[in-house]
Amino acid sequence: MTVEAAPQESYLFQANIGKAGPQVVGGKGVRVDVKFDGKVQKGMIDAVAGAAVGALGWGDEEVYQIINDAARNSTYSYPALLSNESAEELAKFYIENSPEGVFAAALWCTSGSESNENALRIIRQYWVERGLPEKMKIISRENSYHGFTLAAQSISSNPRIDAFSPLLIDQKNICIKMPCAYTYRFKEAKETEEEYAQRLLDILENKILEHTPERVGAVIVETLPGSALGTSPPPKGYLKGIRALCNKYDIIFQLDEVMCGTGRCNPNGRLNCWENFLDPCDAPDIQTVGKTLGSGYVTIAGVLVGPKIRNAFLEGSGSIIGGHTYSCHAFNCAVALGIQKKIKKEKLPENMFKMGNLMGQKLKDKLLSADNIAGDVRGIGGFWTVEFVQDRVTKKMFDSSLNVAGRFKQIAYKNGITLICMPSVKDNVGDLAIMAPSFIITEEDVDEIVEKMVESTNELSKQLRKEGVW
Amino acid sequence: MTVEAAPQESYLFQANIGKAGPQVVGGKGVRVDVKFDGKVQKGMIDAVAGAAVGALGWGDEEVYQIINDAARNSTYSYPALLSNESAEELAKFYIENSPEGVFAAALWCTSGSESNENALRIIRQYWVERGLPEKMKIISRENSYHGFTLAAQSISSNPRIDAFSPLLIDQKNICIKMPCAYTYRFKEAKETEEEYAQRLLDILENKILEHTPERVGAVIVETLPGSALGTSPPPKGYLKGIRALCNKYDIIFQLDEVMCGTGRCNPNGRLNCWENFLDPCDAPDIQTVGKTLGSGYVTIAGVLVGPKIRNAFLEGSGSIIGGHTYSCHAFNCAVALGIQKKIKKEKLPENMFKMGNLMGQKLKDKLLSADNIAGDVRGIGGFWTVEFVQDRVTKKMFDSSLNVAGRFKQIAYKNGITLICMPSVKDNVGDLAIMAPSFIITEEDVDEIVEKMVESTNELSKQLRKEGVW
Repeated sequence: MTVEAAPQESYLFQANIGKAGPQVVGGKGVRVDVKFDGKVQKGMIDAVAGAAVGALGWGDEEVYQIINDAARNSTYSYPALLSNESAEELAKFYIENSPEGVFAAALWCTSGSESNENALRIIRQYWVERGLPEKMKIISRENSYHGFTLAAQSISSNPRIDAFSPLLIDQKNICIKMPCAYTYRFKEAKETEEEYAQRLLDILENKILEHTPERVGAVIVETLPGSALGTSPPPKGYLKGIRALCNKYDIIFQLDEVMCGTGRCNPNGRLNCWENFLDPCDAPDIQTVGKTLGSGYVTIAGVLVGPKIRNAFLEGSGSIIGGHTYSCHAFNCAVALGIQKKIKKEKLPENMFKMGNLMGQKLKDKLLSADNIAGDVRGIGGFWTVEFVQDRVTKKMFDSSLNVAGRFKQIAYKNGITLICMPSVKDNVGDLAIMAPSFIITEEDVDEIVEKMVESTNELSKQLRKEGVW
Repeated sequence: MTVEAAPQESYLFQANIGKAGPQVVGGKGVRVDVKFDGKVQKGMIDAVAGAAVGALGWGDEEVYQIINDAARNSTYSYPALLSNESAEELAKFYIENSPEGVFAAALWCTSGSESNENALRIIRQYWVERGLPEKMKIISRENSYHGFTLAAQSISSNPRIDAFSPLLIDQKNICIKMPCAYTYRFKEAKETEEEYAQRLLDILENKILEHTPERVGAVIVETLPGSALGTSPPPKGYLKGIRALCNKYDIIFQLDEVMCGTGRCNPNGRLNCWENFLDPCDAPDIQTVGKTLGSGYVTIAGVLVGPKIRNAFLEGSGSIIGGHTYSCHAFNCAVALGIQKKIKKEKLPENMFKMGNLMGQKLKDKLLSADNIAGDVRGIGGFWTVEFVQDRVTKKMFDSSLNVAGRFKQIAYKNGITLICMPSVKDNVGDLAIMAPSFIITEEDVDEIVEKMVESTNELSKQLRKEGVW
């Protein structure tokens, strides 16, 4: 234990330790001001709303009022003993703004990771309540991301998790993985989308049979995958097929909508992303949500459960023992409720769906018609990805040593646009640039995002050509 | 999937599902108003500050202003890409208000569970950075609680976790348990406190040798244990002995101060509970904190790391890949910083230490001198427990079917005082009533808490006598 003498640039233990990275110093609407090396880059267009959180954009005056009122009207309540009206009302709001009968109750937590952790706990207790404790296996997907805590990472799969393998839940006997649904890269040319979906469903059914249905408790997938796969829409029939297999073998069907849900990608101006693909009768039994729920102003996420789950608990022990100190936090719930009511009143999910699809179409038109490194443009509503490839025909990825995603992020940043960029995973997922703007974007904002994306793609393409690697 | 017809009392999926439990409807200072069955019980004395969170008490006008300012001055930043000044300043504040040289950096998360999850990730990466990936075993204690997420539960141990065992980290090869330090129940009559501590340390050293020091990465204990053991102070020499063993075998020493830290039990009017027991040269390498950090107004917790940890990362990869969406959340950090500055300015840790110890002494004097079911009164500063027993001499516990802790909670509640009560664990831990009031309590508040505790203890004692079980 020694006293450190050198002056520290940063006191935070995240990202690049020791370096003071860029700091957000202000924001208004879809724009952020970022300070780096003492200089402030003002008015960058925030194409990813922080991290797909800021549904209302930044610096919203009405939200300040919501926060002020929520603070004055909220008193902390300890979830294992006490409750509060805001948490109840937020649950009621989410349930009533989803198709009728789909959800029956909600638990509010403070992060998407916690929501998936709690979902795993609920799945486990559900089978114990039903007297089927052997149904303990969880099937999720390769190339997936369900959170940063260790059980959430245990149902995820990507190379950034590998170093933590000793701390994961049993990956052989409990957390089973099936292939992801990645139409651009893994659908065979001779297959239709439906045939690809059926191939994936056959693999899932074989996994269930291999592990025996009596031991499989849940299937968990992201409705529209986020950072690990880059908004690859489920092929036609895929989600409905998973639902059918879950029905056939008495398995819980959980959708993770932490990143894609809560208004980001809903075709009906409402909340759930799965409404693009599923009828209410095929809805998930459990759904996790987060991100836009608090729009980045407060740290809130949640778990929604359907009547099947709730009833099993009611007919069983009737209770959940223990809980997080900050579950159903009155202030967070009150702010999220105010924000969701405002989003609904201003019909912002409609705007996001329309503007997002316009953005996607324009990106497709401009990027894919010209000669550059963009191989695929995909997404739905407010959630889009450009995948970069060395060869459009063979879909060959760039060598990871070229750091294509990282360099794209830097170029885009210099050009005044913020994104999430994910490095490629060898033979698996290409370099990705991910967009998830605020629900308030206008057509002018869309054009600016598209323009800066095209500009940045061309710039990087040119660099790579010069280096002889493209 | 069926539409549920019956009207629901509660839409929340926590505690007693289906019943609308008591709701906190208001709070001011150390008092809360609780609504139950349509009736509001006003001005209950909150002896546990929610769940050991509300350091400043409820409804603090100055905090409303802090919140208002924080909202206006904060813009969300995505931790993997960007940072913010409030997170930096809060880290600097905590480091500078701890003994010099002990801490070098901090990560802010949204719950105590997440802070322990991140600590586990940091421990793992630390050994990878140092090229010693085999040091993957974690030794923690029986009768312990480190959080509600599944990895946090994997290093915890109490019967409420058992049902989730298939979802825990390997309990045989990775998460190793040693006995807890529980002087009241497990120190033998013939032993001095120091001898008891040495016995526990010998067991720890044998565990390390049994699992081989080359494979043991960390020892994690709560400085002053919370809900699972009820504020049993570490016996003399115990924590210093763990530090010495960690030094001897090159093992990380982590203290969990989520519940007992951040001003609750500091003898010097500062932050850390371990300052009661350890010199700065024996400080932990990693420390988790939470609870009073945001005083219940915002959902924040954190991990502090010493220079040894930070330097290993700096000399290694220099970075942490990924992170929580809501790590180092600018608004939460700004509010916590404002709250911590106010707590420091008003010298509230001094008040808590003095008033808490007064409360403990009065409880000891009044409860242990009379004939009732209180067997032990223990704690430090602002964190105290009464343990109920059937027989004071043999320390025999009540049969769990008698639900002594649960009934005490109900009686106390009726008498106008809120507490955390934990049921007994057979042959292990007795029924507990836990107090952790706000730092602002006065001598009058102390007297009221003591009076209501005595009143409630006598009431329950009488009932149990009548039932012939005491």
